Amino acid sequence: MIANTPQPPYYAVIFTSLKTPDDQGYNEMAKKMASLAAQQPGYLGHESARDGVGITVSYWRSMEDIRNWKQVSDHLAAQQLGIKQWYSAYKTRICLVERDYGFEKQG
Amino acid sequence: MIANTPQPPYYAVIFTSLKTPDDQGYNEMAKKMASLAAQQPGYLGHESARDGVGITVSYWRSMEDIRNWKQVSDHLAAQQLGIKQWYSAYKTRICLVERDYGFEKQG
Repeated sequence: MIANTPQPPYYAVIFTSLKTPDDQGYNEMAKKMASLAAQQPGYLGHESARDGVGITVSYWRSMEDIRNWKQVSDHLAAQQLGIKQWYSAYKTRICLVERDYGFEKQG
Repeated sequence: MIANTPQPPYYAVIFTSLKTPDDQGYNEMAKKMASLAAQQPGYLGHESARDGVGITVSYWRSMEDIRNWKQVSDHLAAQQLGIKQWYSAYKTRICLVERDYGFEKQG
């Protein structure tokens, strides 16, 4: 559930959102988009959590891969539905991951 | 709950974590550290959500501000407790936010 990304540099898209009360169809679409993203060239992984605010971070090889994913037609349709129905606000941040480090308990 | 960050460029620290079953004292410490971070020079805001995986993103003016925050003594103590007790795994990613865009419903 922590994305197994390669050595930096690589890119991250931080998508932070607040939902409207009407989230009919949202979970299904979120799963579909996660699965579709994973099939795109340059996809490196993603992490997602929601309690109140939702944060989804997806990781990509390059800015061009991010641009291409933004334009995939089923994804464009989902973005439109998000604005029309599911989200009261969101912010997308495109970032260059310069360094990373971590820790994992053994056993 | 979506951080009100300035125009890019600025920095983001994406901290993704998995907790151990023993989270005694965790919530209290998380609140204390969020409050302490907000007092540091260069702090621009933060966003946090957990369901299973936890994602906390904090935003900073510069890499130097991030380095300084990492070395604040109460924060160092919290990092040690995190490794010893609360986290089974985590990953920290230091990123340069190159662009951002958003949406907010009116009314």
